[in-house]
Amino acid sequence: MSFQLHPTLEADTHLIGTIDDCQVLLMDDARFPWLILVPQASDVRELYELSEQQQQQTYRAIVRTSKALAQYTHADKMNVAALGNQVPQLHIHIIARYQTDTAWPGPVWGVGQVERYSKIELKRRLDSLVLALS
Amino acid sequence: MSFQLHPTLEADTHLIGTIDDCQVLLMDDARFPWLILVPQASDVRELYELSEQQQQQTYRAIVRTSKALAQYTHADKMNVAALGNQVPQLHIHIIARYQTDTAWPGPVWGVGQVERYSKIELKRRLDSLVLALS
Repeated sequence: MSFQLHPTLEADTHLIGTIDDCQVLLMDDARFPWLILVPQASDVRELYELSEQQQQQTYRAIVRTSKALAQYTHADKMNVAALGNQVPQLHIHIIARYQTDTAWPGPVWGVGQVERYSKIELKRRLDSLVLALS
Repeated sequence: MSFQLHPTLEADTHLIGTIDDCQVLLMDDARFPWLILVPQASDVRELYELSEQQQQQTYRAIVRTSKALAQYTHADKMNVAALGNQVPQLHIHIIARYQTDTAWPGPVWGVGQVERYSKIELKRRLDSLVLALS
């Protein structure tokens, strides 16, 4: 069965590229520099359900992406999380956090209202992230 | 420098054992089956700051522990997260979630009041987790 992105992730994110067989997505919320990694494996909800090879690839993608995003954003802390209580397709949040952001020191999920990027901000952000992650 | 557990983690958790050079701790909150993994590496805040070998070990520990906790608890979903906004020592939350728990479908951090285990519950829980993780 070919991999298909969950409709909720499809609606809430923009594709940056693919790293280690994971889709790298930008969460469409301009309040936080927020990536989502989705291993291209069908019907997987938990990290431990991935094959050994997919686990290795996913861990490499997490390390590479979080390091690059930390360097790109000069964040105070990275938040890395696989929750999936609402969207059943395995996905990993990689979020750059600042002591000055609106959710600090709590987690970002469910806090306030999403602020979508404008078209021009989105284009600029995607272009610079493609570079930062390459 | 020898590894020392952060005082906040020391105060809030109980040691279950060590897996792949990570301390496996039980969070002292009876509302959620909640483990914390702490790689025994000094002065590390982010996953990508671990050495290659420590990364491999930590990922193995995450997979092994989350799978075992899922099987032990029959949880609806596992939440796996490295946040560290409040406690700077790298630690990974492994939380068994139920659609009936008080925080569902949100994350557990900062929700309601901690309910510490009674001595007898704690002993029982620790004993059974040692078995489940062995």
